[in-house]
Amino acid sequence: MTIPADKTIVALSGGVGGSKLVAGLNKILAPNQLTTVVNTGDDFEHFGLPICPDLDTVLYTLADLNDRERGWGRRDESWACMETLQALGAEDWFQLGDKDLALHLTRRQWLQQGESLSQVVERIRGQLGIASSVVPMSDEPVRTHVQTDQGELSFQDYFVRQRCVPKVERFFYRNSENASPSKGFSHALQDKNLAGVVIGPSNPFVSIDPILSLPGMRETLTGLGVPVVAISPIVGGKAIKGPAAKMFEELGKAASALSVAQHYGNLLSGFVIDDADRETAGLFDEGLKVLVCDTVMVRQADREALARTTLVLVAELGGEGR
Amino acid sequence: MTIPADKTIVALSGGVGGSKLVAGLNKILAPNQLTTVVNTGDDFEHFGLPICPDLDTVLYTLADLNDRERGWGRRDESWACMETLQALGAEDWFQLGDKDLALHLTRRQWLQQGESLSQVVERIRGQLGIASSVVPMSDEPVRTHVQTDQGELSFQDYFVRQRCVPKVERFFYRNSENASPSKGFSHALQDKNLAGVVIGPSNPFVSIDPILSLPGMRETLTGLGVPVVAISPIVGGKAIKGPAAKMFEELGKAASALSVAQHYGNLLSGFVIDDADRETAGLFDEGLKVLVCDTVMVRQADREALARTTLVLVAELGGEGR
Repeated sequence: MTIPADKTIVALSGGVGGSKLVAGLNKILAPNQLTTVVNTGDDFEHFGLPICPDLDTVLYTLADLNDRERGWGRRDESWACMETLQALGAEDWFQLGDKDLALHLTRRQWLQQGESLSQVVERIRGQLGIASSVVPMSDEPVRTHVQTDQGELSFQDYFVRQRCVPKVERFFYRNSENASPSKGFSHALQDKNLAGVVIGPSNPFVSIDPILSLPGMRETLTGLGVPVVAISPIVGGKAIKGPAAKMFEELGKAASALSVAQHYGNLLSGFVIDDADRETAGLFDEGLKVLVCDTVMVRQADREALARTTLVLVAELGGEGR
Repeated sequence: MTIPADKTIVALSGGVGGSKLVAGLNKILAPNQLTTVVNTGDDFEHFGLPICPDLDTVLYTLADLNDRERGWGRRDESWACMETLQALGAEDWFQLGDKDLALHLTRRQWLQQGESLSQVVERIRGQLGIASSVVPMSDEPVRTHVQTDQGELSFQDYFVRQRCVPKVERFFYRNSENASPSKGFSHALQDKNLAGVVIGPSNPFVSIDPILSLPGMRETLTGLGVPVVAISPIVGGKAIKGPAAKMFEELGKAASALSVAQHYGNLLSGFVIDDADRETAGLFDEGLKVLVCDTVMVRQADREALARTTLVLVAELGGEGR
């Protein structure tokens, strides 16, 4: 059982974890069935260049250009520019590969020529030969800031420069109150063939919540009349990658799949947890359909299997559809 | 005969030709004897990065990092970023090597942090281990524009994108009326030990005239009371590199060393021409001391020889000095 060929899926994604699921969905679904909506809360400016970490990870992953070991940037990357930056005594806390840099320069130029982020992503998507739709959550800047025991930090400052060491207290999504969903995002949600919304195994606080912070977005999603299904980024009490587990703990909650589901609350109709958390399956809210499977994606086959399982859950929850 | 060890030289330079002479002067003179003042009229912004072609050529040449064959940029350069830019369908008319790019990113960052171009150049000079002083002509933007038979073009548009094909009619140095010499330039001119000003074998119209276009600069230089000596960039009716000969012809003048001297006019007290133009030596203004030698710099030894000869001319003209 999966969704019919005329039905569509909107996937919400951050960087690494979300992009892997999206790569699986992208393989299973026809191009016109999938719209990936990507977090832009991590975006920032460096050396005057607009950096969009999650968008780039999704684009590189879908184009099969991503470096799987490093988890960000491009495979077969070279570092001549970075090494020279270091030799010149310039800031080198944010790594920029030579090829990756080209994407930043291109985006800078197209944005400066007056294109929206959506238009720029659309052009890059085309150039990289990605068939399905990829859109930023918004064309207006929303910036994730972290209130920590060492003061308020911008996300990249917290995440890259300070390596997530400061203890988190609260998250802000600056300017989200003035931002609206990108046209591509809105259109995908309004599609009469929409079968469901899939929230990737991304960090709830810094990858998905920025998307949900757009005005009215939670209400929009719960009011769609289609299943909203998330995959837990926490497996066996740990995050597959990144600081999600640490964040839950610092906020006084258990680092668990259950905490993730509780965090999303009534937004979810379905939730996918890992085999490792099978024994916790009975603890979830009765109204939430929980599916247990292997959620750790190492190979492409794992991505497709998880995508398939997730679509099964969407189909089961969807009934007759919209 | 050369200038005494306590005397100083100010060299005006554009890119390739000027930087070669400066590399010779830099070898012969003690670090505190030489200040190189570099044209910034070619500077422009590309991909949001400040590009300073002549400054970079001078800095790379003095640090012995320059690519001698190509005539610009760094030796042992790699092009991963540029190749990726092309693959992405971005503008690729201006070549940016991976290592070269690091200098642009660094400069962008330091300028954005509020440093002046002079301060940025000073830091780069230090990082590259260049002992003598290198300063931009001004910290304010002056931009060379070319009036051509195809309309007014910015210099890089004319020079790189249009490969100097449009016929030149006139040159403008935009904003020069509002610009002042950099502090380093002014201080070097006011040095009581100044023995002379050397104008490198650079393009008069687009490398040296932008410097001379600063308010009162011609008067300042003629009023210094020290010799001003130029080396002809035109040898045997041709420019060693670049469009100088073509420009003279399009402006209705012969492409000759004589035209160069007449262009600079009463600014010059001495002029160095090539052996190839020896027979024209009698045609110059009587008040101008003309020295004939081999001016074509192929090897480092050629640069030093020409620098030495130029300093001899400065010393001869200088008499007792300032």
